[in-house]
Amino acid sequence: MESSSEESTELSKKQDNTKDSNGDVGNKKTKVKQVHYVCVKDRQFTVTPVAETYHDAHDELPCDETTILQFENELKGQVPDTSDTLTHNSITALLSSKFRDIQRRLKQYGIEAPKFRKRLVSKWESLNYDICENVLYIKNRDQYRSKRWVTFGWLSKWMIMLGIGLLTALLAAAIHGIVEEIAHIKFKYLSDYFDQCAKDDCLYLPVFMWMGMNLVITCLASILVTFLQQKAAGSGLLSFKCFVAKSGGVVLSILGGLFCGKEGPMAHSGGIIAAGLGKGRIRFCKGKGISLYDGFRNDHEIRDFVAGGAAAGVSAAFGAPVGGTLFSLEEAASFWNQDLTWRVFFGAMVSTFATNFLLGAFHGHATELSAPGLVRFNVFDNDLKFDLIEIPVFVVMAVVGGLLGASFVVLNYKLTVFRQRFIRKKWLKVIEAGVVAMVSALLAFILMVGVDDCTATKPFGNTTVTARMHCKPGQHHGLSNLFLNTPEGCLKALLHDPYESHSAASLAVFTVVLYFLSVWTYGLSVSSGVFIPSLATGAAWGRLVGMGVVDMLPGLTHLSGDFGKYALIGAASQIGGNLRTTISLTVIIVECTGDISFGLPIMIVLMISKWVGDFITTGLYDMNIEVMGIPIIPFEAPPLVDDIRARFVFPDFQLRFVLFIFVEFVTFVQISS
Amino acid sequence: MESSSEESTELSKKQDNTKDSNGDVGNKKTKVKQVHYVCVKDRQFTVTPVAETYHDAHDELPCDETTILQFENELKGQVPDTSDTLTHNSITALLSSKFRDIQRRLKQYGIEAPKFRKRLVSKWESLNYDICENVLYIKNRDQYRSKRWVTFGWLSKWMIMLGIGLLTALLAAAIHGIVEEIAHIKFKYLSDYFDQCAKDDCLYLPVFMWMGMNLVITCLASILVTFLQQKAAGSGLLSFKCFVAKSGGVVLSILGGLFCGKEGPMAHSGGIIAAGLGKGRIRFCKGKGISLYDGFRNDHEIRDFVAGGAAAGVSAAFGAPVGGTLFSLEEAASFWNQDLTWRVFFGAMVSTFATNFLLGAFHGHATELSAPGLVRFNVFDNDLKFDLIEIPVFVVMAVVGGLLGASFVVLNYKLTVFRQRFIRKKWLKVIEAGVVAMVSALLAFILMVGVDDCTATKPFGNTTVTARMHCKPGQHHGLSNLFLNTPEGCLKALLHDPYESHSAASLAVFTVVLYFLSVWTYGLSVSSGVFIPSLATGAAWGRLVGMGVVDMLPGLTHLSGDFGKYALIGAASQIGGNLRTTISLTVIIVECTGDISFGLPIMIVLMISKWVGDFITTGLYDMNIEVMGIPIIPFEAPPLVDDIRARFVFPDFQLRFVLFIFVEFVTFVQISS
Repeated sequence: MESSSEESTELSKKQDNTKDSNGDVGNKKTKVKQVHYVCVKDRQFTVTPVAETYHDAHDELPCDETTILQFENELKGQVPDTSDTLTHNSITALLSSKFRDIQRRLKQYGIEAPKFRKRLVSKWESLNYDICENVLYIKNRDQYRSKRWVTFGWLSKWMIMLGIGLLTALLAAAIHGIVEEIAHIKFKYLSDYFDQCAKDDCLYLPVFMWMGMNLVITCLASILVTFLQQKAAGSGLLSFKCFVAKSGGVVLSILGGLFCGKEGPMAHSGGIIAAGLGKGRIRFCKGKGISLYDGFRNDHEIRDFVAGGAAAGVSAAFGAPVGGTLFSLEEAASFWNQDLTWRVFFGAMVSTFATNFLLGAFHGHATELSAPGLVRFNVFDNDLKFDLIEIPVFVVMAVVGGLLGASFVVLNYKLTVFRQRFIRKKWLKVIEAGVVAMVSALLAFILMVGVDDCTATKPFGNTTVTARMHCKPGQHHGLSNLFLNTPEGCLKALLHDPYESHSAASLAVFTVVLYFLSVWTYGLSVSSGVFIPSLATGAAWGRLVGMGVVDMLPGLTHLSGDFGKYALIGAASQIGGNLRTTISLTVIIVECTGDISFGLPIMIVLMISKWVGDFITTGLYDMNIEVMGIPIIPFEAPPLVDDIRARFVFPDFQLRFVLFIFVEFVTFVQISS
Repeated sequence: MESSSEESTELSKKQDNTKDSNGDVGNKKTKVKQVHYVCVKDRQFTVTPVAETYHDAHDELPCDETTILQFENELKGQVPDTSDTLTHNSITALLSSKFRDIQRRLKQYGIEAPKFRKRLVSKWESLNYDICENVLYIKNRDQYRSKRWVTFGWLSKWMIMLGIGLLTALLAAAIHGIVEEIAHIKFKYLSDYFDQCAKDDCLYLPVFMWMGMNLVITCLASILVTFLQQKAAGSGLLSFKCFVAKSGGVVLSILGGLFCGKEGPMAHSGGIIAAGLGKGRIRFCKGKGISLYDGFRNDHEIRDFVAGGAAAGVSAAFGAPVGGTLFSLEEAASFWNQDLTWRVFFGAMVSTFATNFLLGAFHGHATELSAPGLVRFNVFDNDLKFDLIEIPVFVVMAVVGGLLGASFVVLNYKLTVFRQRFIRKKWLKVIEAGVVAMVSALLAFILMVGVDDCTATKPFGNTTVTARMHCKPGQHHGLSNLFLNTPEGCLKALLHDPYESHSAASLAVFTVVLYFLSVWTYGLSVSSGVFIPSLATGAAWGRLVGMGVVDMLPGLTHLSGDFGKYALIGAASQIGGNLRTTISLTVIIVECTGDISFGLPIMIVLMISKWVGDFITTGLYDMNIEVMGIPIIPFEAPPLVDDIRARFVFPDFQLRFVLFIFVEFVTFVQISS
């Protein structure tokens, strides 16, 4: 019984922490949340069995706090054994082996796992779901109760959404332009240096130069995020500081040679732009800032705007307005609302359109509107066709993707727990990011020297940088155009490079390195996205499979013609296995491919890889939410929990009361669904 | 004050009707719904101002029925003037002129409009939103409370969804095959007859033959729907009878020459298949049927299955799994739920895939999977490219589409009210359908004789039927391949026919005829869909615009090369103006086009046509829901209504109580969003 006593002290500590943080918040004059207490008659809620035990009729369900307190006293003696009643978190968890037992998980996080996790919970602040209708609100509202004001407010919301779309597009285009230009200069310089040193036999010089560059730039990126952005603080996530850290940070991360994408920070930056425009104010630092209007400064409106901003960000990144809208609805908003969807879609459309125009202008053909997003898979030379006999191959690839994705989640879970335990000082975080960047460069160098893969085939793209290394004149190293490239460029190269560009052996080694690098990179204290690394890793082994299929079935000419589709299927499998998002991811990938007819195999692959992955672990996002201790409520109430009593879970009354509210909400969500 | 007194008699009449119908339902041993009564503390609901007037503190909000009854007595004397407080139904209605004043609408429906509308309301039955957790339910549930049962139930749901997808696909392929084969025989016969009579100068003979065929087949179609399908009865919508009426009816409707599509009935049939599989039982007629299992026979599960079935139906019809899923979520399900979405998407995927396979087999190339759906726009010869300078043209077309869509809604509204008032007998409905089919044939004949449009250009498609009429040998009449075709074939011809196929004058006349025919056809007592007619009408005038653009800007060769895109934009404008659905429609059209790069202009056009249309009227679906008196709750609570008191709207207590529940629910929806 030692463990349980330790647990209760933990719990009381937590209570203290909660009090402290509440006190802090109060000092900062932030609105203190009211706890709503709902008492229900004639309607079975999930918690009612607690009442049933002591009151036979439902009508006598206690409706005031004194009765509940009395309850609490009655219950104090008898806390039964929980081992049989505590069950699973979700139906996928029910089927999974990794997170099979909630008891084990409770122990894992509650006793064995780092203690600060509990403190983390109190750092998160959620938005109010409903307008707080009090007397002041009603009085204030009554001033603006006219058709004209309603119409004006409605138009303002659309105008703000227009502004969000335009600003997000501007940001996306700026990030894209800066990254592309500087990265090209960096890699061109390194390539020339390598070519020079291949002659002079001084290859250690450019690699030190490369590692040094990566170290400095990545440390800057990490400092920006670690010291400027107060990640844990609720409202800090939507501050101007955070915006600078995210937008500037992602440029530096990619230039620093980290293996990451810019779509995650783009979604976040879009959300910050939306919150800023919605609130009508920018706060540079404490107390100082510009305030323009305050009509939409309530959580309800800001939440809607942020959903729109996130959608605009994703749309700008992928040129996928529908996918962006769905991503925002699936991951950011909890409920499907036609009016909101429509406005979010408008923001996403504006953002995509403006990004397209700006990027077109950047490349010198603005009116053609042919550059729809930052990340595109580019058009495949041949139309992507497929035959029924290829479907089994796709299915196998999907299974592989699901397995690799699950192991990605497990590895990253271990790493995250390690980081939470040992890498807690800010300067340690910066150092870790720098180390990863240096190791990335070093591994690239080792592969380019150690693997024998010389080719004379011109790679995809006009401005691709290659290095000769130890190859004959006129040739270049097959991996050089993958490493001396941004992660996006690497992905495109894997999809579109001709058959002869990379040897199978070098691709295999490359895949392994890429996989572990992306595991290590995800979760660093930098501004980064996980889409592109996942896609690129998948494309690497998918390309390998494609080469195998072409070699084994040389008769099927239409297969060898567009074997890049195997890279695409691999990319979809891997990202499906890692993230497990459903509809939105499908739409984004199909929109990126630009070819609907190939949508069917992509959907099949995403579906199967999700299933296989879910059988083993939860998704990457869900795992992180759990490990970070963010109190988020799942869509579905867990199965078999509807007779779990509050006192089984929390021996302390106050916490039991909190659970009561929680379960109420789950039921509420359940009813809604 | 005459009107108000009349209104109150109307209301009391309504009450009587409600009572009667409730009694009826009770006699038929249908489940009688319990009215839930929720009493709320510390939480501001919309109705609280009622309390505020009499109790200053919110804590004293009445929580038992006696207090409310006391209230009611207090309030009886004072019912204030409602003219200022009753406001608008939605923000789009706020901006609209047609349905601007809710007072006028109340009058329109309440006093001037047909009185049977009120009776209609009581005919609709909605599904329970929540599982009814009573003692019996809990006892029964406890038998199946184990991991094994939960897992088994979960797997069963997926298996049922698989079955839904496969059966829907089978149905879709069967309908497609039968319609295509028989329609081709019919039109080939008519075409030969016309060609024969063009020589012998006996053109009146084939047209009588045509009208006769249409009359007989359409009357059969209408009899099937009118007499077999009990449209108004709630559960009848998901019966086996209804399935036969819908699936058989749509085949006959199209063969009967009505200008309609098969996607609406496909969605409905999919829903019926889903309900049947979910319930595990088929009822052929009263009391007789086959019952297999009953594990999912509750409203909650059936609702989810029906959403999946509707998605599968739409997906099979358009080959658009994502669009189908979104359509189902947007129009059928009220809340966004990841787990449900995922299952619905699976059903849609299976359905699309199986339809693709079956249709491929029908055309003799099953493994290529190149026939993704019943309705496809087919691949455009040239890639659909567009330039920024074309956007203004698209915008103008979108505005035109919005205006035409709004007038479509107004015309159909007038027609629907006329039908509700005068065409109420079943045989009258059958006669009307027959008349429309005959007039369709007659108008086609008049146009083919009266309009001078001879051409020798080979139309799109290998099996297209043309008629020579009065043209020279070797030529055919330009409109003949549009009229001697299924509505889908007509749409494809408008999108893909070469430039010289149709003269501008004939297209203009054709558009007008098509527009009014589709207005007249929508709402007939037959099994039909409105997507295809809307698209075809839009494609007709869009093609006209395209021809104008090509003539006016002969220098832009890339415009004339693919001027079919103007037909596509016209089609999107028209359907956007008619239906006003948002995301799902966009995705469906983009998926049908098969070309993502042209998605951006399609989205712009759909957005603008929706706005323009919403400025004038509500959408076609919403108008019909309103006119049919279906008690549906909008997504957003109306603006400016949060201080409307129940007694303003309903002087009678019982009805006021109903409104209380209603407003509670609106608030509930509002909180959720």
